[in-house]
Amino acid sequence: MPIDAQAAIDLLKELRALTSDENGAQRLAWSPTWLKARAWFQTKLNQLPIEHHYDAGGNSWSTLRGDSDAALILGSHLDSVPNGGWLDGCLGVIGAFTVLRRIADEYNGKPPITIRLVDWADEEGARFGRSLFGSSAFAGTQTIDQDRVRIDANGVRLEDALATCGVSIDFIGDAQRERNHAAAYLELHIEQGPVLESLGLPLAAVLGTKGVERHAITFHGQEAHSGSTPMSKRHDALAAAAKLALEIRHIAMQYADAVCTMGSVKTFPGIVTAVVGRCETTLDQRDLDAEVLAAMFREAQNKSVQFAQEEGCTVEWSRIWNIAPVPFHPELIELCGQAIRETTGHSHRMPSGPLHDAAEVSRAGIPTVMLFVQSLQGISHNKIEDTREDHLKLAITAFDKLASKAIEWIRQS
Amino acid sequence: MPIDAQAAIDLLKELRALTSDENGAQRLAWSPTWLKARAWFQTKLNQLPIEHHYDAGGNSWSTLRGDSDAALILGSHLDSVPNGGWLDGCLGVIGAFTVLRRIADEYNGKPPITIRLVDWADEEGARFGRSLFGSSAFAGTQTIDQDRVRIDANGVRLEDALATCGVSIDFIGDAQRERNHAAAYLELHIEQGPVLESLGLPLAAVLGTKGVERHAITFHGQEAHSGSTPMSKRHDALAAAAKLALEIRHIAMQYADAVCTMGSVKTFPGIVTAVVGRCETTLDQRDLDAEVLAAMFREAQNKSVQFAQEEGCTVEWSRIWNIAPVPFHPELIELCGQAIRETTGHSHRMPSGPLHDAAEVSRAGIPTVMLFVQSLQGISHNKIEDTREDHLKLAITAFDKLASKAIEWIRQS
Repeated sequence: MPIDAQAAIDLLKELRALTSDENGAQRLAWSPTWLKARAWFQTKLNQLPIEHHYDAGGNSWSTLRGDSDAALILGSHLDSVPNGGWLDGCLGVIGAFTVLRRIADEYNGKPPITIRLVDWADEEGARFGRSLFGSSAFAGTQTIDQDRVRIDANGVRLEDALATCGVSIDFIGDAQRERNHAAAYLELHIEQGPVLESLGLPLAAVLGTKGVERHAITFHGQEAHSGSTPMSKRHDALAAAAKLALEIRHIAMQYADAVCTMGSVKTFPGIVTAVVGRCETTLDQRDLDAEVLAAMFREAQNKSVQFAQEEGCTVEWSRIWNIAPVPFHPELIELCGQAIRETTGHSHRMPSGPLHDAAEVSRAGIPTVMLFVQSLQGISHNKIEDTREDHLKLAITAFDKLASKAIEWIRQS
Repeated sequence: MPIDAQAAIDLLKELRALTSDENGAQRLAWSPTWLKARAWFQTKLNQLPIEHHYDAGGNSWSTLRGDSDAALILGSHLDSVPNGGWLDGCLGVIGAFTVLRRIADEYNGKPPITIRLVDWADEEGARFGRSLFGSSAFAGTQTIDQDRVRIDANGVRLEDALATCGVSIDFIGDAQRERNHAAAYLELHIEQGPVLESLGLPLAAVLGTKGVERHAITFHGQEAHSGSTPMSKRHDALAAAAKLALEIRHIAMQYADAVCTMGSVKTFPGIVTAVVGRCETTLDQRDLDAEVLAAMFREAQNKSVQFAQEEGCTVEWSRIWNIAPVPFHPELIELCGQAIRETTGHSHRMPSGPLHDAAEVSRAGIPTVMLFVQSLQGISHNKIEDTREDHLKLAITAFDKLASKAIEWIRQS
């Protein structure tokens, strides 16, 4: 039975009309617009022969019971960043819904294994700075004590925002119960980068999510008068930071898919007439290979010390956050590649730089893979985020083939 | 008759006790503390056989009439930045007062030429961003229409702040009358930089004030996700800016006394997870040679365009402010060098990177020179600004010798 990919696109447009304004999607997690999106989605789910509930972490679960309890999970997230795009997250949820409907139809409501659809809560972390909220509760990697005290820009506590949505932060770990019988997890998502467009390819099987080292690096020099201080007498913190900003690119380019980014530079006193006395920077390093990531981190540290010394400055590092690389399941990657080749005639594999709920699911030991579809101009988290409709149809078709292959794989294992 | 340099130091300490708090000097122009400093100074002036008045620009003039109307002007400024040092500006005023008193004593109140002491109004421009206020009114380079609308951090207009001190902004140009019979101008000031300390010298004759080119330079690239955007696909505005931050040092170091400073860097969106899409920087370039200054400006522009192209970015320049170099009078520089040699046994000549009221006086065509005394650690505009007391005594002694030489020079010309 072929999947109705156009129906998925129609649903995505319906959701966009309901939850966007002139600045883009506004499905910020724990907000009224997000709850509206979920209520709308519930009306679609109610058309299927499924059981539905919310777990203790705020995740929405729809279960189509099969002959076996072994469960294939399909999902993504309905929440968006403020002023976001129309596809980030909800493509995967609506795509999963369309596949679920195809399976329910094909097997008259009783497939050989159990199929579950999950809409994860607060993937983006846009309001409280805590991404992958619901999937980490599912994976048992939740961090309640740190998260409890988080506040948004208006001073609202995360704990209180959750309570308005019926979620009690003390019990979110109970979401781990949903892992019972989970046999595999599949997620369809837009690439959010420019790689597939530059290759002229619509789809890719995702190898895993890159590990991240995220640090604040501060150079301390000596503030001085720009007019009276000779070049040879300066301790210019900006000069040391500028050298590092350029060096991290050389570090990244030693490795095939690695990236290093200095995203923020702040200068103090930061006035036109003073040599910079203190320069605060940030560094974000990512790779799928833990050894490469560790090597890049060491190299950046060593170079920062060298540059500080050259400029008569000192440097200090402070870790903001880090996560290990999460490689996806090799057999599911292979099945994903087959599904893409059967759909498009080509196949490509790539790591994901951005994190996804799939990383948390994989960390919980559940075989996982993602399927990426090309993003136009590589832009996301912006209202101009877009993907060609023919590519969306290919994506949903390939994701459906992947689901069929995964069902067979689970049955045989 | 020898000058009483210790008396000058005692007066400086008296002024410090009267107008400083635990954060440093607080003689912000047009403020109650500044008016208090001027009132205190008036009590000292009243001990001398002088005529006193304030001109239309708020400058304080004390005149010791001599046999000739030709006038030697000595001066500096009593105003300070907030949390400033105890010597910046007031050393020159108190030094001039001490010299004036020596001359009045020596000639029994009637020297061969007229000697005038000026305390310029608002040299620092710390409150309204308009430095050299009073001396530019004297020089006829005032900019009333632009200055009228200036406001301070509390929204008070410059025009209204002046009115509370009895100065009407519409008439400040009348201060040009004070230029009548002006034959030479001498100013003693702390160096505010580290050069003399590093040379182990207490004093220097100042060759002039460096010209300044001050620009805002903005690089435009493409904001992109730090995780999903390969290094080869980036248009990183920070990378172009970092190259320029390093290049301006090479540009400056081609020339003996030139300086180039990038004092401010701002990154947008400026978050750890995004490649910098826009980078706003500032550039301050200074040299005493107009051709060198122009060459450095051209080189920085050319390099910025090159770096923008290399990084797939664009660049735009916007002039914040500029001023031509102001060379001081060669014969007065020679006399200043002699006075220093007679006082210390050594002599040194150097340009001034910071601007001074002397630059405005010189621009008005009045023969001018300054004498610098060493600053400890090169630090000023800070409560820890300091100069050794033996160096202060040498400075006042040499400045007195310079005044005597200038009187003779004026008489012979």
